[in-house]
Amino acid sequence: MLSGGLDSATVLAIAKSKGYEVAALSFEYGQRHLDEMHAAKRVAQAQGVLEHRVVSLGLSAIGGSALTDEALQVPKDEEPGAGGVPITYVPARNTVFLSVALGLAEVIGAYDIFFGANALDYSGYPDCRPAFVEAFEKLANVATGVEGSNKFRIHAPLMQMTKAEIIVEGTRLGVDYGITHSCYDPIDGKACGRCDSCQLRARGFQQAGIDDPTPYAD
Amino acid sequence: MLSGGLDSATVLAIAKSKGYEVAALSFEYGQRHLDEMHAAKRVAQAQGVLEHRVVSLGLSAIGGSALTDEALQVPKDEEPGAGGVPITYVPARNTVFLSVALGLAEVIGAYDIFFGANALDYSGYPDCRPAFVEAFEKLANVATGVEGSNKFRIHAPLMQMTKAEIIVEGTRLGVDYGITHSCYDPIDGKACGRCDSCQLRARGFQQAGIDDPTPYAD
Repeated sequence: MLSGGLDSATVLAIAKSKGYEVAALSFEYGQRHLDEMHAAKRVAQAQGVLEHRVVSLGLSAIGGSALTDEALQVPKDEEPGAGGVPITYVPARNTVFLSVALGLAEVIGAYDIFFGANALDYSGYPDCRPAFVEAFEKLANVATGVEGSNKFRIHAPLMQMTKAEIIVEGTRLGVDYGITHSCYDPIDGKACGRCDSCQLRARGFQQAGIDDPTPYAD
Repeated sequence: MLSGGLDSATVLAIAKSKGYEVAALSFEYGQRHLDEMHAAKRVAQAQGVLEHRVVSLGLSAIGGSALTDEALQVPKDEEPGAGGVPITYVPARNTVFLSVALGLAEVIGAYDIFFGANALDYSGYPDCRPAFVEAFEKLANVATGVEGSNKFRIHAPLMQMTKAEIIVEGTRLGVDYGITHSCYDPIDGKACGRCDSCQLRARGFQQAGIDDPTPYAD
């Protein structure tokens, strides 16, 4: 699953480094930041994938998140991770994404699904925790027409890594982070520098001691 | 979850008879038979729901099913349930549907999700089995921002009922089956009478000894 962000670009590089041939899957789900999709296409092309499918999901009909609901504001200049589930959490988003990925996996005969969940930086997102990934893997193995047991594996290689560790690993694998996009609320295609996602990303480059190639709005 | 078919119309009536107030959720997922959606709207109105949301899902980008892929034929005049997973199975469809339902449930504060899965008539559909429903319920209870454990329940009241039993129960509860739609491949809005779904439905009315109100094409 490739969002075009820093994490999923790193996951793609990790999967390829382990010898997997990769089919990339991205989602248009009514997110405000469609710049993500352009980034996903750049990353898929730069790293080389077998195919890149884009699935539209009308999750804005569900609402409940600042990422899909125009009536809710994306928080700025707040301390990331402070105080419960963030307003940028999209209800059941990763459950829906993994479900569609499972459908594609069944159709193309793939059994390894790579997912950029991270429990440290996004501790407030319930569907980024190890317990969630384990429960989804169990579900996947009874949900499809695939014969045989426990064939599907949900890989979440970033789960216990800090943002700085992710950046170090991706840099080692040759990921071009200048073409990725993380901002929740971009301004003319450039990162705002102030939302949770921008703050976590900037801090990651700083702590990794690697130059931040992100195009910022100011 | 309300498809507009016989089963989900019955599930809605069962939920209401147990005293639940119901928010209905339907999906446009590239299915050929959009007549389903018209039926879902009729059923939601006839039975009375708090609200009826329709979510679009671009599952045709995944393919792999005769219901979403124009290149595949809907089987006609075959014995339903003969030989493995039917070509009308949409990969991971019910996993995706339940995931979106879970997101809506979280947003509106509902914890009971009603699902018309049936293990007898659709024994070839992996995502209609009790093991699938149990695994999804476990997932649901770690996937969201809802506090407290095991709050979500996935209700599948039709799981062990025959089609005839479903029709008897729905008739008792006042369901108008004349406004429901089950056909996989309708002709000018009327049921083909020959696909698996039509055959199961017609046989159900016959075995129940209840007049079949379905508008057939011939």
